[in-house]
Amino acid sequence: MASTINWNNLDKLESFKKLLSLKNSVSVAKELQGENGAVRVSKYSVPMGGGLTYNYAAKQVNEQLLSVFQQIADEDQLLEKFRALYNGEVVNLGEKRMVLHQLTRGQLGEAVNADGTDKRDFYETQRKNIAAFADKVHSGKILNEKGEKYTTVCQIGIGGSDLGPRAIYLALENWAKAKGTFMMDAHFISNVDPDDAASVLASIDLSKTIFVLVSKSGTTLETLTNQSFVNEYLKNAGLDPSKHMIAVTSETSPLAKSPDYLAAFFMDDYIGGRYSSTSAVGGAILSLAFGPKAFEDFLKGAAEEDKLSVEKDVTKNAALLDALIGVYERNVQEYPSTAVLPYSQALSRFPAHLQQLDMESNGKSVNRFGEKIDYVTGPVIFGEPGTNGQHSFYQLLHQGTNIIPLQFIAYKNNQTGKDVVIQGSTSQAKLGANVAAQIVAFACGKSDSNPNKFFAGERPSSLIYGDSVTPESIGALLAHFENKVMFQGFLWNVNSFDQEGVQLGKTLAKSVLAGETSGALKAYADLLIK
Amino acid sequence: MASTINWNNLDKLESFKKLLSLKNSVSVAKELQGENGAVRVSKYSVPMGGGLTYNYAAKQVNEQLLSVFQQIADEDQLLEKFRALYNGEVVNLGEKRMVLHQLTRGQLGEAVNADGTDKRDFYETQRKNIAAFADKVHSGKILNEKGEKYTTVCQIGIGGSDLGPRAIYLALENWAKAKGTFMMDAHFISNVDPDDAASVLASIDLSKTIFVLVSKSGTTLETLTNQSFVNEYLKNAGLDPSKHMIAVTSETSPLAKSPDYLAAFFMDDYIGGRYSSTSAVGGAILSLAFGPKAFEDFLKGAAEEDKLSVEKDVTKNAALLDALIGVYERNVQEYPSTAVLPYSQALSRFPAHLQQLDMESNGKSVNRFGEKIDYVTGPVIFGEPGTNGQHSFYQLLHQGTNIIPLQFIAYKNNQTGKDVVIQGSTSQAKLGANVAAQIVAFACGKSDSNPNKFFAGERPSSLIYGDSVTPESIGALLAHFENKVMFQGFLWNVNSFDQEGVQLGKTLAKSVLAGETSGALKAYADLLIK
Repeated sequence: MASTINWNNLDKLESFKKLLSLKNSVSVAKELQGENGAVRVSKYSVPMGGGLTYNYAAKQVNEQLLSVFQQIADEDQLLEKFRALYNGEVVNLGEKRMVLHQLTRGQLGEAVNADGTDKRDFYETQRKNIAAFADKVHSGKILNEKGEKYTTVCQIGIGGSDLGPRAIYLALENWAKAKGTFMMDAHFISNVDPDDAASVLASIDLSKTIFVLVSKSGTTLETLTNQSFVNEYLKNAGLDPSKHMIAVTSETSPLAKSPDYLAAFFMDDYIGGRYSSTSAVGGAILSLAFGPKAFEDFLKGAAEEDKLSVEKDVTKNAALLDALIGVYERNVQEYPSTAVLPYSQALSRFPAHLQQLDMESNGKSVNRFGEKIDYVTGPVIFGEPGTNGQHSFYQLLHQGTNIIPLQFIAYKNNQTGKDVVIQGSTSQAKLGANVAAQIVAFACGKSDSNPNKFFAGERPSSLIYGDSVTPESIGALLAHFENKVMFQGFLWNVNSFDQEGVQLGKTLAKSVLAGETSGALKAYADLLIK
Repeated sequence: MASTINWNNLDKLESFKKLLSLKNSVSVAKELQGENGAVRVSKYSVPMGGGLTYNYAAKQVNEQLLSVFQQIADEDQLLEKFRALYNGEVVNLGEKRMVLHQLTRGQLGEAVNADGTDKRDFYETQRKNIAAFADKVHSGKILNEKGEKYTTVCQIGIGGSDLGPRAIYLALENWAKAKGTFMMDAHFISNVDPDDAASVLASIDLSKTIFVLVSKSGTTLETLTNQSFVNEYLKNAGLDPSKHMIAVTSETSPLAKSPDYLAAFFMDDYIGGRYSSTSAVGGAILSLAFGPKAFEDFLKGAAEEDKLSVEKDVTKNAALLDALIGVYERNVQEYPSTAVLPYSQALSRFPAHLQQLDMESNGKSVNRFGEKIDYVTGPVIFGEPGTNGQHSFYQLLHQGTNIIPLQFIAYKNNQTGKDVVIQGSTSQAKLGANVAAQIVAFACGKSDSNPNKFFAGERPSSLIYGDSVTPESIGALLAHFENKVMFQGFLWNVNSFDQEGVQLGKTLAKSVLAGETSGALKAYADLLIK
C-alpha cells in the first residue's frame, strides 16, 4: 500500500505551479456584488457533520481555482494519504508511530491492530469503562470517604490534555445546564505557576472532587508537580488521595500500575496530545461533567465529519477544501496569520485549542523526511469571540496594512434559551446580523472620500454555521479542524504529529534547575529565581 | 508650541534610512555566547516603574542600532510629541480631541483645561468620588433593599470597558485574597451573545450585586442590550434596578442624568476606551473589588512608568526603546506578528488587553493626515500564559518558517504564597527556569545532525520582570505598553487614538436588523438569523 504514495514537497507539484500563477486572480468584492453575490453565497457551501455547513463564498476562489485545488488534491494523493493514515500506516515518521485519533470515534477503513489488540476495540473499551465509571459516580455507587456524592471534577493536565477538553467543556456547559444533563462542575489545573493550582483548589470542595490526572507518558513535569500540589492539599484536608484521583495515561506509563488511583483509563502513543479530545483524555472529564451520552454524541459528530472528509471531490469535502484554501492564502497570497472568530461565548477557548492544534502540528521547517523546505508552513492562529473582538482587534483586520484571512463560526440559536428584545431584535439576531455584516464589510469594503473611513475590502473569510453548539456539532467542528490541519500537513509534506520544537526549552530548563548553567542562561536565571 | 513639531512619515526620516541599512546586522546567538552573554544580560536593562525592569539582551540590537534608535527618536521628536500630548494638544486629529489618559494618574506637564475645568482635578475628583462610594459599600453605609451588604460587582461593558479592567481584576484577584484586601467578587458581561449575560447572572446572587454599566457615549448597542437583559432579571427577582446599578459614562451622555442609577462616575472624550483602565472605567470595579487603596497604588505604578517615559535617552526609557525595537522588527526585519508571553497565571487575560491596545491603536493604513502610507504598521499581537503556551504554539515559535518576536513577562514570587517542592525545586523556581531557558533556546538555538531536532535560533525576545504582580507593578506594566504603543503611533505617523475601522461593520449590522439588505448581505443574514 504505502509504496503507491509519493510524499512530495508542495513546490514539486505541477498543479501547485498552476496555483502560483493564480495569485490575486479573484476579487471577492466583485464576486459578492449584487444579486450574483446571493447566488454565490448559496452555491459556495459544503455540508459538514453535526448539522454544520462550511460556506466559502467570501473566500478568494472561483471555478478555476477550485479546479486547480482538485488537481492538487489528486496529484498530491491527499485522500490516499488520509486512507493510509486511518488504515494504520506509520505516517508519524519521526516518532515511528501510527496516527489513530479518528479511530477513537469510528472506523473509517480496515481494522488496525497494534500492541496485540484491535485499536478500535481498545478505544471503545476505554470509552465504555469511562461511561461505567461515570455512571457509578453519578448514581452514587462510588462515593467519597464520608459516603457523599462527588460533585466536582478537576483535570490536571497541560497542552493537549488541557486546551481541547477545556474548550469543549466550556462549549457545552450552558448546553448541559439548559438540557438538564449537567452532572458535575469541572475545573482545570495546568500551569506550573503555583497560583493556578492554589486558586482552583481554594474555590472547590476538595472532599467532593475527583481529580483527573492526564499524562500520556506519566512524566510531564508540570502535571506531576501539580499532582503533588493537589495531593498535599488533599492530605492536609484529611482526605485520601487515592479516593480522589483517577489517571488517564498510556498502559506503559508508571501511572498505569499505581494503586494511587480510584481508576485508570488508557490512551496510547497513536493519539497525539492535541488530537486527544475524543480519546480518554477528553472522555473522562466530559463524561463525568455531562454524562456518557453527551460524550458519545460528541464522538458521533466527529465521526460524521470524518466520514465526509474521505470524499474526493474538493467541493464536497469541507476539511479538504478549507485546507487547500488555507495553503493558497499562505503560500500564494502570502498571508502570515489567520483569525478564528466564533460568534458564541461558549466557544471562548476554542481559538486557543485551534492555536495549539494548528501551530504545533504544522509550525515546521523540515519535511517529513527531515529535509529543509523552501516554502512557508503553518500560519499564526489567534482569535477571540465576537462581538467582543469587534470592539478590540478588528480595527487592524479592517484597516491594517496586512490582510488576515478570517474563519467565522456562528449559530442560529443560543444555548440557554434566554434572550431579550431590544430595538426590535433579540440579542441572538444581533449576533447573527453582526456576522453577516462583518463578512460583507471585510470582503466588499467601502469607498469614502475621507481616507480614514475608507475600507479596501478584499479580506477573505469563510463561515462555519449551524443551529447551535451541541455535543454533535462541537464534535464535528473539532474534527473539521483536525482534518484540515492533517490535509495541510500532507500538502506541506511535514510531519504534523510530532513536536520536536518543544524539547530544547525543556532540556535547558532542567539544566537551570540542576544549577548546571553559565553565561547568559545563568544570568537570566539569576534575575528570575530567588 | 505645536508649530515646532514635524509630523513626518517614518520613511521620510533620514535616520530611518540608516536603520533600513542595518537589516539582519545583529546575531543574537553570537551576542549571547559565553561570558559576554552574561555581561550583555546585565547591561541591556532599563528600570521601569513599579519595581519592574525591561531587559532587551535577547533582542537584535547592539550599540550601533541603539545609536540609530536615538537618532530616530531625536529626528522624529518623539519626546516633544509626547510632551505636546500630555500638555493637551489635540493629537487625536481625526476626532479633534486631546488625549489625556496619562492625566488620570499624574501630572506630567502643564495644567490642561477643558470643558471649563482643570482635567487633572476632574479625574482626581472622579477617583475620590469612587473611593468614597466604595468605602460606603464596604462599610455597609450603602446597603441593598433588604439592608444587606453588597458582596459582588459586575461590569457591563465591551472592548476597552471590558478587556483592560477584566485583565487587571484577574491580575490582582489572588494578590488581594492573599493580602486580605479582597472586598467583592467581580464578574463581567460583555458579549451581545445572550448566553454571556445569562450564564453570569445564573452564577451570582443578584440581590447582593452592584452592576457597573460602562459606556462613554451611552449608546454602545451591546452594552445597552445587556443592561436591559440585567434589568429584566433584576425586576423578575423583585429587585429595584436603581439600587443595583451604577454608571460610568461621560457627563454629556444620556446615562449621566438618569435617575436609574445608584451613582454615576465620569470619564470624558479625552480617554479612549482601550486607554481607560486608569480612569473611572477601571476605577469603579477595581475600587469596589479591592478597595480604593489598591486602585490608588495601581495608578501610582502607572504614574511612575509615565515619568520614566519622558526620558530622552532611549537606553533609559523602556517604553521608547521597546517601541523603536518593535518598529525595527516590523519595518526592517519584516516580522508580521508579536507574541506576549506572561509566565504568571494572573496575567491570563493581559495578552487580550494588549491585543486590543496595540492592534486597535496602530492597525491603520493612513497617516494622521489621512494620507495612505507606504510601510506596514501595527503587527498581530497574540499570546497565552507560560508554561501553558510551551505545550501549545511554541512549536511554531521555535521551528516555524517565520520569526515571531517575543515579549516575556515574569516575576520572582507568586501571589498566593503557596508552593510545593518537587524534584528539588519549587513550582515558582520551575516557572523562572523555564523563562530563562526559553529566552536562550529562542535566541541561541541548537545545532543537531537530526534536522528535526535542529533549532535555528535568532528569535529575538525581551523580558519584563519584577518581584510579583501587585497593583503598582501591574499599573506600571499597563502604562509601559500604552506608552510603547503611543510612541509607535508617532513613528508610523498614524492616529493611535481613533478606530474608524470598526464603523462599517456596525452600519451594515444595523441595516441587516432593519431588514434593509439585498444580495450577499441578505443571503448571509438569512443563513444566520431565524
